Amino acid sequence: MTEGRIAHAGARAKVTTAEAAAALIGSGDTVGMSGFTGSGYPKAVPTALAARIEAERAAGNPFRVRVWTGASTGPELDGALARAHGIEFRLPYNSDPIARARINAGEMEYFDMHLSQVAPMAWQGFLGKLDVAVIEVSGIDADGLLIPSASIGNNKTWIDLADKVILEVNGWQSAALDGMHDIYYGTALPPHRVPIPITMASDRIGETRFRCDPEKIVAIVETEAPDRGSAFSAPDATSVRIAGHLLEFLGHEVAKGRLPASLLPLQSGVGNIANAVLMGLIEGPFEGLTAYTEVLQDGMLDLIDSGKLTFASATALSLSPAAASRFNAELRRYRDRILLRPQEISNHPEVVRRLGCVAMNGMIEADIHGNVNSTHVMGSRIQNGIGGSGDFARNGFLSIFLSPSTAKGGAISAIVPHVSHTDHINQDVQVIVTEQGLADLRGLSPKQRAQVVIANCAHPDYRPMLEDYRARALRGSYGQQTPMLLSEALSWHERFVATGTMRP
Amino acid sequence: MTEGRIAHAGARAKVTTAEAAAALIGSGDTVGMSGFTGSGYPKAVPTALAARIEAERAAGNPFRVRVWTGASTGPELDGALARAHGIEFRLPYNSDPIARARINAGEMEYFDMHLSQVAPMAWQGFLGKLDVAVIEVSGIDADGLLIPSASIGNNKTWIDLADKVILEVNGWQSAALDGMHDIYYGTALPPHRVPIPITMASDRIGETRFRCDPEKIVAIVETEAPDRGSAFSAPDATSVRIAGHLLEFLGHEVAKGRLPASLLPLQSGVGNIANAVLMGLIEGPFEGLTAYTEVLQDGMLDLIDSGKLTFASATALSLSPAAASRFNAELRRYRDRILLRPQEISNHPEVVRRLGCVAMNGMIEADIHGNVNSTHVMGSRIQNGIGGSGDFARNGFLSIFLSPSTAKGGAISAIVPHVSHTDHINQDVQVIVTEQGLADLRGLSPKQRAQVVIANCAHPDYRPMLEDYRARALRGSYGQQTPMLLSEALSWHERFVATGTMRP
Repeated sequence: MTEGRIAHAGARAKVTTAEAAAALIGSGDTVGMSGFTGSGYPKAVPTALAARIEAERAAGNPFRVRVWTGASTGPELDGALARAHGIEFRLPYNSDPIARARINAGEMEYFDMHLSQVAPMAWQGFLGKLDVAVIEVSGIDADGLLIPSASIGNNKTWIDLADKVILEVNGWQSAALDGMHDIYYGTALPPHRVPIPITMASDRIGETRFRCDPEKIVAIVETEAPDRGSAFSAPDATSVRIAGHLLEFLGHEVAKGRLPASLLPLQSGVGNIANAVLMGLIEGPFEGLTAYTEVLQDGMLDLIDSGKLTFASATALSLSPAAASRFNAELRRYRDRILLRPQEISNHPEVVRRLGCVAMNGMIEADIHGNVNSTHVMGSRIQNGIGGSGDFARNGFLSIFLSPSTAKGGAISAIVPHVSHTDHINQDVQVIVTEQGLADLRGLSPKQRAQVVIANCAHPDYRPMLEDYRARALRGSYGQQTPMLLSEALSWHERFVATGTMRP
Repeated sequence: MTEGRIAHAGARAKVTTAEAAAALIGSGDTVGMSGFTGSGYPKAVPTALAARIEAERAAGNPFRVRVWTGASTGPELDGALARAHGIEFRLPYNSDPIARARINAGEMEYFDMHLSQVAPMAWQGFLGKLDVAVIEVSGIDADGLLIPSASIGNNKTWIDLADKVILEVNGWQSAALDGMHDIYYGTALPPHRVPIPITMASDRIGETRFRCDPEKIVAIVETEAPDRGSAFSAPDATSVRIAGHLLEFLGHEVAKGRLPASLLPLQSGVGNIANAVLMGLIEGPFEGLTAYTEVLQDGMLDLIDSGKLTFASATALSLSPAAASRFNAELRRYRDRILLRPQEISNHPEVVRRLGCVAMNGMIEADIHGNVNSTHVMGSRIQNGIGGSGDFARNGFLSIFLSPSTAKGGAISAIVPHVSHTDHINQDVQVIVTEQGLADLRGLSPKQRAQVVIANCAHPDYRPMLEDYRARALRGSYGQQTPMLLSEALSWHERFVATGTMRP
């Protein structure tokens, strides 16, 4: 199936086995891998590397690597390497359950970063030296240029910075991906940076293929392996209610003249709530929509099919197996409406602010003052990572956070007196939505925000407790700008850890 | 002294008393005032308005206004209005002690904002309607254009958005300010935003004077009143040690090739530590420095005089009385090296990231994981506000926070187990400096950060307590990504509130 995918003779001569390629990676190496939200990650070499690491460990030779990626990958990469205890250090985002368990057991160092900042910080020399890049591509052209796969992520930067490059050419990825990418080669270190010349989500500013010094390519491995996207279930009632509140709000903003009738470029996180919002938009009144976002998931394809979404810019596809098949089969229909960019550009604060993105992200919890925790369960246990939420929430036209009002069958309230970890400060949180309702926090002081968040977003089971806390904090707080009872602020989380529920 | 400052006949006809001008402001009005870090704020009209409010209150007529500014103003504005209980709502930054007391007593709503976001959010309609603008200028030219004063702040936006404009023409401000300003008229609402065309701190992209529809000008008041800048004391030993650690680090970064020998555009907060850093740069090895910052304080003038600083861009001057006199007397010497811009541009994330600013800001406290609290003493009592620290810390090339390791004679540790309020998440904090030393947190996981912050930055009196907390958290935390003991996380703050010291 990869036949014809390697059109360059010099490259063909470097085709080898995954095992031989993995043997080129040494213990202690820093390895930059492709992959973003489960798409376009290398599959064979990490699997072979994990096998090698297990063998070395069994032979008494500790072997660990430092792994940088675009964002989350798949079980063949993070899962296999983490199972083998092979990852010493990981950045910038992870959603693999085995890697997560290792991190939360304190066995693996994890540096959780804003996704837009990974490439610049690597270039700035802040992250150390990159030894090897392992990048999935969908082909190599006759000139040796690399045809990207289903995600771009940090691939350009890893290819440019690494001493050695290992490629996986994946025949499962549609050959029709060729031409959908826009690789920007205009970044630089200050004082040589210039404006990113994007003024519309659809603007093309780069090239369709990666450049790569052929001297650096040390191995090429052919694969035929699907991305492991998660299946989506039909939106549940809670997600539909959350989406309904949000769509009503957007309609209200259009009516007030604060948003154009075609809205502004949408940024949407991943998951069932985000998908419910996208499905709601299919039924909704807005036409001529665009997206400037990180990830395109199933709902975005549906929205394109509906004729409502005219263009979507992202850095990755994250499709369910069914949608991936449909996408690969009908890619020619989508390719004029979809563009994949480096994550440095898809998430660039400059562009997000200029375009005026409507940022819609999930969260773990918000406090009554509108601070948001996106990452740490009970303040210390990482779920995935901040991802691009900070890039979009601070710089977007509107910053919206969405969550069911409770989790774990009601044992956890998503609205708490005080967040146990802060990812998004109250200044960066304008709207909070749960299935209970929507809190519009724009222009409100913390005291005012607390009233609205409790009244509109908290679950009725927790609302009286929150209201009681709020009232007592108004009397007993050290200062009254952001009323707080220090002795109780984290007591709900403490109770959950001790008893398994935030309920008293 | 204001003779000749009003060259436009139509404007001259509108000259009136401060009392008559203040009478044009109604109770409940939203008033956009000029002023940024104590410079360029209106003095006569707010004083007259405060007197009117006191008289109305005495007569049983409640009278309050909503006040928007650039940043902090002076006693004649925030002080007088707050004393009269005349401010219902205030944004985006305050450092006046009377207003602060009102806020912390719960008597005044305060909306603490990122300074770069005030103008865009006002244009987006998120803050409500602006009734009146009260703007200090240094003159009105023959065409009716307004010559700005010693700060720009949000003046362009207030003039454009307000229904009515009241001007104070202040003859104390040097006539030679004319020409130092760069008012950008290229902002727009999305989808019509374009790149901000700045690639160097010295780039001029706008006009030197404000446009203002003469129909909107309802009153002009002549004044002759100095800005009330604070005097600086010579840097104390602690500030000098902090500055020393920082300068050593910058030298190290140059040696490693991560910073050019002329560094990158400096952003510096206000205060004695910042001044000590600037004084250290006078003695230091770096030549050809530039600044792209919010505020120019005394040290920046000294740095220009030394020949080390070739250009400084800001939105305001914040000079001691002595430096203000020297600046006004010798302004022609400085005007080719200084530019004042709207705060939307001086703090624009797009420009800050492009130029690669070295962001240096003060803080109230940091926790062992490198989260920073810049605003709330003991989590609830506001000090000033977040100001521009978030604009620069998230987007700068390097984000550095500086503080003495203790406050209140040692009763407060600036390094705590867990911040009581978060303004800067650990992702946005790369370096922390106290007089004890410097913690370089780049590329470190939270567990690694904790070791470095405690070892390098904590005061020896608190270091064992922090080390003990860290060690116990490594055993007792729910998750090990960001180890935390929920029951103790805020106990140091609780102890301070209860006993007056964080010491056990």
